[in-house]
Amino acid sequence: MRFRPGWVTRLAGAVAATGLLAPMALAQEVPEASAVSAYVDNSYLFLISGLVVMFMAAGFCMLEAGLVRAKNAATQATKNIMLYSVAGIMVWIAGYNIIYPSEWIVEGVFGFGGPWHWGDREAMSEAGYSPGSDWYFQMVFVATAASVVSGTLAERIKVWPFIIFTAVLTGVIYPIQCSWEWGGGWLDGMDFSDFAGSTLVHSTGGWAALAGAIILGPRLGKYVDGKTVPMPGSNIPLAALGTFILWFGWFGFNGGSQLAAGTAADINAVSIIFINTNAAAAAGVIAAMIMTSVLYKGKMDSTMILNGAIGGLVSITAEPLTPEIWQAVLIGGVGGVLVVLSVPALDKLKIDDVVGAIPAHLVCGIWGTLIVSWTNTGVPIVAQATGVVAIGAFVFITSAIVWTILKFTVGIRVSEEEEIEGLDLGELGLEAYPEFKKG
Amino acid sequence: MRFRPGWVTRLAGAVAATGLLAPMALAQEVPEASAVSAYVDNSYLFLISGLVVMFMAAGFCMLEAGLVRAKNAATQATKNIMLYSVAGIMVWIAGYNIIYPSEWIVEGVFGFGGPWHWGDREAMSEAGYSPGSDWYFQMVFVATAASVVSGTLAERIKVWPFIIFTAVLTGVIYPIQCSWEWGGGWLDGMDFSDFAGSTLVHSTGGWAALAGAIILGPRLGKYVDGKTVPMPGSNIPLAALGTFILWFGWFGFNGGSQLAAGTAADINAVSIIFINTNAAAAAGVIAAMIMTSVLYKGKMDSTMILNGAIGGLVSITAEPLTPEIWQAVLIGGVGGVLVVLSVPALDKLKIDDVVGAIPAHLVCGIWGTLIVSWTNTGVPIVAQATGVVAIGAFVFITSAIVWTILKFTVGIRVSEEEEIEGLDLGELGLEAYPEFKKG
Amino acid sequence: MRFRPGWVTRLAGAVAATGLLAPMALAQEVPEASAVSAYVDNSYLFLISGLVVMFMAAGFCMLEAGLVRAKNAATQATKNIMLYSVAGIMVWIAGYNIIYPSEWIVEGVFGFGGPWHWGDREAMSEAGYSPGSDWYFQMVFVATAASVVSGTLAERIKVWPFIIFTAVLTGVIYPIQCSWEWGGGWLDGMDFSDFAGSTLVHSTGGWAALAGAIILGPRLGKYVDGKTVPMPGSNIPLAALGTFILWFGWFGFNGGSQLAAGTAADINAVSIIFINTNAAAAAGVIAAMIMTSVLYKGKMDSTMILNGAIGGLVSITAEPLTPEIWQAVLIGGVGGVLVVLSVPALDKLKIDDVVGAIPAHLVCGIWGTLIVSWTNTGVPIVAQATGVVAIGAFVFITSAIVWTILKFTVGIRVSEEEEIEGLDLGELGLEAYPEFKKG
Repeated sequence: MRFRPGWVTRLAGAVAATGLLAPMALAQEVPEASAVSAYVDNSYLFLISGLVVMFMAAGFCMLEAGLVRAKNAATQATKNIMLYSVAGIMVWIAGYNIIYPSEWIVEGVFGFGGPWHWGDREAMSEAGYSPGSDWYFQMVFVATAASVVSGTLAERIKVWPFIIFTAVLTGVIYPIQCSWEWGGGWLDGMDFSDFAGSTLVHSTGGWAALAGAIILGPRLGKYVDGKTVPMPGSNIPLAALGTFILWFGWFGFNGGSQLAAGTAADINAVSIIFINTNAAAAAGVIAAMIMTSVLYKGKMDSTMILNGAIGGLVSITAEPLTPEIWQAVLIGGVGGVLVVLSVPALDKLKIDDVVGAIPAHLVCGIWGTLIVSWTNTGVPIVAQATGVVAIGAFVFITSAIVWTILKFTVGIRVSEEEEIEGLDLGELGLEAYPEFKKG
Repeated sequence: MRFRPGWVTRLAGAVAATGLLAPMALAQEVPEASAVSAYVDNSYLFLISGLVVMFMAAGFCMLEAGLVRAKNAATQATKNIMLYSVAGIMVWIAGYNIIYPSEWIVEGVFGFGGPWHWGDREAMSEAGYSPGSDWYFQMVFVATAASVVSGTLAERIKVWPFIIFTAVLTGVIYPIQCSWEWGGGWLDGMDFSDFAGSTLVHSTGGWAALAGAIILGPRLGKYVDGKTVPMPGSNIPLAALGTFILWFGWFGFNGGSQLAAGTAADINAVSIIFINTNAAAAAGVIAAMIMTSVLYKGKMDSTMILNGAIGGLVSITAEPLTPEIWQAVLIGGVGGVLVVLSVPALDKLKIDDVVGAIPAHLVCGIWGTLIVSWTNTGVPIVAQATGVVAIGAFVFITSAIVWTILKFTVGIRVSEEEEIEGLDLGELGLEAYPEFKKG
Repeated sequence: MRFRPGWVTRLAGAVAATGLLAPMALAQEVPEASAVSAYVDNSYLFLISGLVVMFMAAGFCMLEAGLVRAKNAATQATKNIMLYSVAGIMVWIAGYNIIYPSEWIVEGVFGFGGPWHWGDREAMSEAGYSPGSDWYFQMVFVATAASVVSGTLAERIKVWPFIIFTAVLTGVIYPIQCSWEWGGGWLDGMDFSDFAGSTLVHSTGGWAALAGAIILGPRLGKYVDGKTVPMPGSNIPLAALGTFILWFGWFGFNGGSQLAAGTAADINAVSIIFINTNAAAAAGVIAAMIMTSVLYKGKMDSTMILNGAIGGLVSITAEPLTPEIWQAVLIGGVGGVLVVLSVPALDKLKIDDVVGAIPAHLVCGIWGTLIVSWTNTGVPIVAQATGVVAIGAFVFITSAIVWTILKFTVGIRVSEEEEIEGLDLGELGLEAYPEFKKG
């Protein structure tokens, strides 16, 4: 890296140095990649992006294990392994085929493809990328929505009903609403726009979590005499690690949603998305830093700052490509502010969200989706609001139905004794940190 | 990601949207990538896959640090840094040249290449990929085998003898058996098949660990009056993180073993491998969830579930490409079951495997290798069994010899006092968590 | 991976197996990639490398959170999220435009570009890569320098002044010295060579940390009666994780600094860089293992070994491409030795560096830069020494000025009470591990 010229100013040197002069000259005439190269480049985008999105499951795991109390940390960590596994299997059994229906049963609303298959193993798919690479990328997206739910309902939900809900969410609920937009359904027909899933992924997870939180009720002792009792997370460094992993994975989440990388325009787009994604997250952190310093008498709040990053990331997810950097900063910064304001608001409503997932994923998901109308001409605010409301209503109501059925059949809440003693002993029969004496 | 067509159904739209129409048309006639592009794409596969496989060292580190008791956690964590380092150097000094002998000293059994070199820095190697990228990929594979050993022998082995064993394993034992197959030796000549190393990497690590565990003996107080005394891991969230990191890295482990990505068929294969790898791991988790819930009166077992993921991953590693998804689910699911059954079986034999590495890596490695005969026509079960037995016998016996020599020279076991006090104080003179009072 | 031929020995088989025969034949005549493919490959190098360099922020976070005492761990973790965010925004506001000035205000010393923009979204930039991908890569580099500072000054610095310093460092100080070399300034004109930033990034962070450590003073009770009081890190497994993450990210740090991957020569170079980077780190670990075993009566020192890895990595960063592997081993091994020697030396000077960042990043950064003259003909030692001294003086003096201004305005040190009680309670009003009783 002896010489790193700015791209505008030092053209000749750079081109000569990289040995690209000959092909570049050629490029003036024939700027297309070979079809195979583009095919490989596109598939790589899905695979590499999908890989880091997969790792976001570890991010949620660490964030949640760090923000619950020690007595529930093993359960929370293990649950994240399980939900990721169940999501993967359900997307295969049902999910993907509902998201991309080959035939609509109800036009634009619900359909089903035949069981997905990767097709011819040797041939170059006419889609322009390896079908399996796309499937993998979609699968990890669904898992992300399920991860959102897990944190909100921590410390009081039974493991098995949670797993069953996860199966329904990832196999049915998520796919149906997703088909409305990414599957070419009715929302896609009305200029609704959600680039990487502020609404389709994050708000969907948030609505499912909200329904669960209301039906499940708050943790014992969380709201006493109209006051909110703090129940601090047991391992803040792990929560910080989780946030960094999510941030890391988000470049794949948003960048991969460009869906192609084999042309100059596409790889330029992926680059811009990386920049805007980072800018929005950074702005979310800084906004939360400043807000909590001001609100809490000079003391910044760690968990707000971590959620500020996530809020910024969710906010830019609906459109990480078209904004200028300053717009991404603004969009993400507002996301950080919304997180700081929403957390106490939820507490006032006695909705107990253990890790702050509803503020970060649902509230910022709505914000991010609506603000697309500002950066994208041709995306009417009405379409955005329609999508937000329709998907919100659908996910919230279907989730509430599932939670209610679970509540009145297998039961969703652990016993009071188990909740006090901790889910690790009750659900798993072990402890997350058996040797560290509780203070 | 406004519009995500299923690849079968919405062809035209997708192609138009990605701007690939022109090159695709072209592709009908000239479906080859340029040689340079394929060369770069192939090398990228090695480098990116190798990079995430390298990160598996961190996964083992976290898994093991989480599953040992607090008094040994710093030693275990540090040992993982050291073994990865020693493996890297030994592969350079000897390992790679034994794996790929330019001349056989004993035909098909043992050979040696001249000291490896990356060759001409500027030229396009006729291998079709950058020689250094392949070397890097092989090197991190060897390190993986060494990591397997580390967990089994935790909490009682001296650091230096372990390091010496690691040097012999990665410099000599692993390379010799590996040359039999991937180096084109005698096993390769008899249709034995092990795509990414269920036997060559994971079972090899497992056999070396088994020999060590027998010679080293169980931890003090582990088996008392015919009963197995539980010694729970000190940090379950870290162990969960380790599992996620291993899962993440395994996409590189299996995907990179396609060895090429520059054609449509190759990148399709990598995509399929990603899908099957994930499916098998998820099935391993779900199998372990269900099994332990049933066996342990409704209480799932965290460490079994984590090892279920690893068991599923190891099981699919011998052949992640040819199975259909349902086959991958089955293969991985059986892997999860095998883990749950093997752990108590080992305890009955009083073989003390601290982290469950022998069930996950050795038992599932054997299973995964044998089952290849089901998914791959032309791979006779006899060949598979021969490979399993031959490599097993070779690695077990040579490892046992090395462990025995170490035992009667420098000694391999810490003193009773040190074991009780913890290896962190004895080997390192510090504590992993000096401030957390032991309960 | 049935058959893995060594590249020299088994040519024909390999080529046939990968199906590359036809394009390879073609390649003899036309060894250039298409311009678009090279453009995409180059941009991928920046994006993927940048992504893992971004993750190094998590590595620093874990390393530092693990090496501080529990009462400061939440602050340290949160500060790492904040500094990464501030760096990202400052690079956008000012940094990048100073690094690559379109016009020099003082020729070769200080300049400014217009506000950076990614340019035409659709077009193929004549630089040969996506401008945004390069910007992203540069941005994460700047954040790395800021991360170095954070660890040294832990456990006693106020959060806000640290954040302000970070903004100045990443927006002004780092960019100015960086422009001297990578921006084509005066150092670049005199054959100074620093491939990926031993001096420009790591020593810069180290000098800023050194200035801060001197002005801030040591922690209370660190140096008593001429003796150094050990203050052991609270979570060694986290510190080991951090080291692994840094090592993982370093492949992007050094590999991406090749700046291109679209030709055989370039991807060969990236591969060689991966190998040398790993070899140097491994050698650093082994050197620290041996050194501390000898010096500390058979007890290896965990934190020295972790810093040995980092020392090895920093040492090879100034030139990871030209060395042969044995040279990389030597360079990295000396780095490990330097770490082990520098830590007590700093303590003798009563300079309190909490995590050992000055030995690993500054001392090894100097070593790595000077030794380039050994491996690279045409890089005079005088030029290297000039760069080391000039950048050292500039960064140290400007940093000292900023720290001094901060000291006498807002103050940089927490009160004695807060330091004793811990910064987590004082700065954040929470605890990193509220439930783990302090021993």
